[in-house]
Amino acid sequence: MSQLTVTDLTRVRRHPERAHYDRDTLHALLDSALICHIAFVLDGQVQQIPTACWREGEHLYIHGSNGSRMIRALRAGASVCVAVSLFDGLVLAKSSFSTSVNYRSALIYGQFAALEGEDAKRASLKAFFEHYLPGRWDEVREPDASELAATTVLALPLEQAVCKVRSGPPQDKAEDEAAPVWAGVLPALSGWGAPQPAPGCEDWPLPGSVQAA
Amino acid sequence: MSQLTVTDLTRVRRHPERAHYDRDTLHALLDSALICHIAFVLDGQVQQIPTACWREGEHLYIHGSNGSRMIRALRAGASVCVAVSLFDGLVLAKSSFSTSVNYRSALIYGQFAALEGEDAKRASLKAFFEHYLPGRWDEVREPDASELAATTVLALPLEQAVCKVRSGPPQDKAEDEAAPVWAGVLPALSGWGAPQPAPGCEDWPLPGSVQAA
Repeated sequence: MSQLTVTDLTRVRRHPERAHYDRDTLHALLDSALICHIAFVLDGQVQQIPTACWREGEHLYIHGSNGSRMIRALRAGASVCVAVSLFDGLVLAKSSFSTSVNYRSALIYGQFAALEGEDAKRASLKAFFEHYLPGRWDEVREPDASELAATTVLALPLEQAVCKVRSGPPQDKAEDEAAPVWAGVLPALSGWGAPQPAPGCEDWPLPGSVQAA
Repeated sequence: MSQLTVTDLTRVRRHPERAHYDRDTLHALLDSALICHIAFVLDGQVQQIPTACWREGEHLYIHGSNGSRMIRALRAGASVCVAVSLFDGLVLAKSSFSTSVNYRSALIYGQFAALEGEDAKRASLKAFFEHYLPGRWDEVREPDASELAATTVLALPLEQAVCKVRSGPPQDKAEDEAAPVWAGVLPALSGWGAPQPAPGCEDWPLPGSVQAA
């Protein structure tokens, strides 16, 4: 497995046994996520914004309107800390103290850079669609030149990054192990509900992308 | 509805029609969330950590080990931007450009303060459990004095806060409305899967808290 370089910024201090510094874990986590949280400093004030994200190769991508304050700040080179986190379940121990959650999270540090050129932006937005709902890109009208011109696509290199993962059953203290209390994991599930047609589409067959979701 | 005071920090510029500045919306959003993302600056570096959260009255709470770098930084008065975000579904328009997501998100700015005293910490941790899994607190061993002493509980006042919400069907451009493409919303669902007993608990009946989940 290809390893990320561990730096002072990415070395996990608390629960270091939960740290993962390999690209396979990072890629799998990013490929399971739809949303990231981007922290940055703007005019001396710490800020963050949740936004859609996708991975291609060794970069994490986001997009937005050219006019967005966050997009302008990131494009200008603001340092970021991006979090991608997935909640996997409740870890129900026999004591309150040992109760925990299962999760997978990644932190990525660095600076975004903007994609230049219509073709590069269109190709990356297609990858975004394929991540969110495979097949949907081919069903909709592609962006035209003015829409592409109004959109910024930003890429963050997966260089300074670390994953932290907790999985498995609770770990009770020895003194609690024999307590007559059910312990275990209540796993979190996520999925899609029944599609809700827009007005005017009630009688249409579902498109392939939605059928396959 | 009780309104939050709008400040330069909390005024929404992009899609201002999605902004909500009332406490009812904020409370409902926080009460639906299990995880928040806390952005802060430590030694000149922007950082963020996803962590469990709960609301009581007009404060958002988190907890952690006294030794955690984040806990120490927040306890020392670091300014934070806390995001709580819920992904509600894909908004499938007839063009790529008008495709969107439905979501509810809150940003809260300010500084955390630590709860002092065993009783205050125990009561707040009970509220945390009641938020995550009602009834579980009464099934497990409560924290003892040393566990409470090792735990920091932090409260952030809900003063500088704003919610941003997108809901409902896609809004296509007029030129796309007649296109023969299915449009609508694919709602995101979340829930609990089958409980997974810890080793030794396989033959036990499920506790009331898990049965009711």
